[in-house]
Amino acid sequence: MTLQRRAVSAALLALALAPLGGANAQAGGDKAHKVVFQVSDAEPAKWNLALNNARNVQQDLGQDKVAIEIVAYGPGIGMLRMDSVVGPRIAEALGSGVSVVACENTMKNQKLVRDDMLPKIGYVEAGVVQLMKRQREGYAYIRP
Amino acid sequence: MTLQRRAVSAALLALALAPLGGANAQAGGDKAHKVVFQVSDAEPAKWNLALNNARNVQQDLGQDKVAIEIVAYGPGIGMLRMDSVVGPRIAEALGSGVSVVACENTMKNQKLVRDDMLPKIGYVEAGVVQLMKRQREGYAYIRP
Amino acid sequence: MTLQRRAVSAALLALALAPLGGANAQAGGDKAHKVVFQVSDAEPAKWNLALNNARNVQQDLGQDKVAIEIVAYGPGIGMLRMDSVVGPRIAEALGSGVSVVACENTMKNQKLVRDDMLPKIGYVEAGVVQLMKRQREGYAYIRP
Repeated sequence: MTLQRRAVSAALLALALAPLGGANAQAGGDKAHKVVFQVSDAEPAKWNLALNNARNVQQDLGQDKVAIEIVAYGPGIGMLRMDSVVGPRIAEALGSGVSVVACENTMKNQKLVRDDMLPKIGYVEAGVVQLMKRQREGYAYIRP
Repeated sequence: MTLQRRAVSAALLALALAPLGGANAQAGGDKAHKVVFQVSDAEPAKWNLALNNARNVQQDLGQDKVAIEIVAYGPGIGMLRMDSVVGPRIAEALGSGVSVVACENTMKNQKLVRDDMLPKIGYVEAGVVQLMKRQREGYAYIRP
Repeated sequence: MTLQRRAVSAALLALALAPLGGANAQAGGDKAHKVVFQVSDAEPAKWNLALNNARNVQQDLGQDKVAIEIVAYGPGIGMLRMDSVVGPRIAEALGSGVSVVACENTMKNQKLVRDDMLPKIGYVEAGVVQLMKRQREGYAYIRP
């Protein structure tokens, strides 16, 4: 095999593999597993289920081997308000490396500003667009 | 590189790239982004959330850059009945290029015919099979 | 084309095709279509919807052409308990080749053992991890 052909094959190999585990700095780094959880219900039971799911995934696959993101939007935004009943669990999730992001479109509709929200969470312009982006990046999608 | 080898490489490249943004006329044409929304609850709040989500995605990504489909089935079929409380919003979504389809299996079970449904919507034999097809075509899946 | 190059191309082709219909014995064998249903609600209406969906998919695509798995976890675990109202339908689904699996993490939390569950179902350590695995294997994800 010539060097040129080897390079072409390597490039094709990389492309072929990308959809299976495509990873870059923004998309879960070099983690082998990736999952995004959608929280769009105003039900604390669902919030706890999402947080339990995230913890189980970390325990099962290893905290350093899985990129986890929780996206809260629509009626689910209450999960990330300062007065959320799962506030301490969100802090714990953030501490264990889970990404937790709130939808700013929803916040605008509900007249919420960042000072109304839990500390240290992240923000995205549109929760749904973030969920689309993550799926394109190879994240599994789970809606608890 | 010979012509033959070049052709093989091009074909492999196309195959390798397909899952990331595979596009054909039926699968959202040449749109860069694709998303399918599942509506399977008999809750108008969920219908409005799906329609809000679709509109936000269009605003965020650009109406001509994203293919959006809403699939209503099971208890969600009421969203597309002539007497649906979101009738005007469905007309608006259709007008902005969103594809809206009803599951004919569900319609049969509920003794609904096309004359019972909102004008200009589309129909698929099985809503679930359509959701599977869209995911295969690279659509992100969102269940509001 | 030399034999060596032919082999490399074939391997690349297989890799390139894998994400579209990646198949091995564990991942739906050589079935053309694959779908995993998540059941995580304690609502018999949702359980029946999932079972209806599975049956429709089999009827539409052909029982031997689609790999179907139902994963029950969290509040949805009741679907697979011995006293489940859909017990007979689960037996029927298993008989028609649908894979039905219960989450052992959930069972542990709810103090359930295998003798409390319906016969012939399968078990996975973590329902959510199974749903991630199936999506990686190219299964469509449906949450009824």
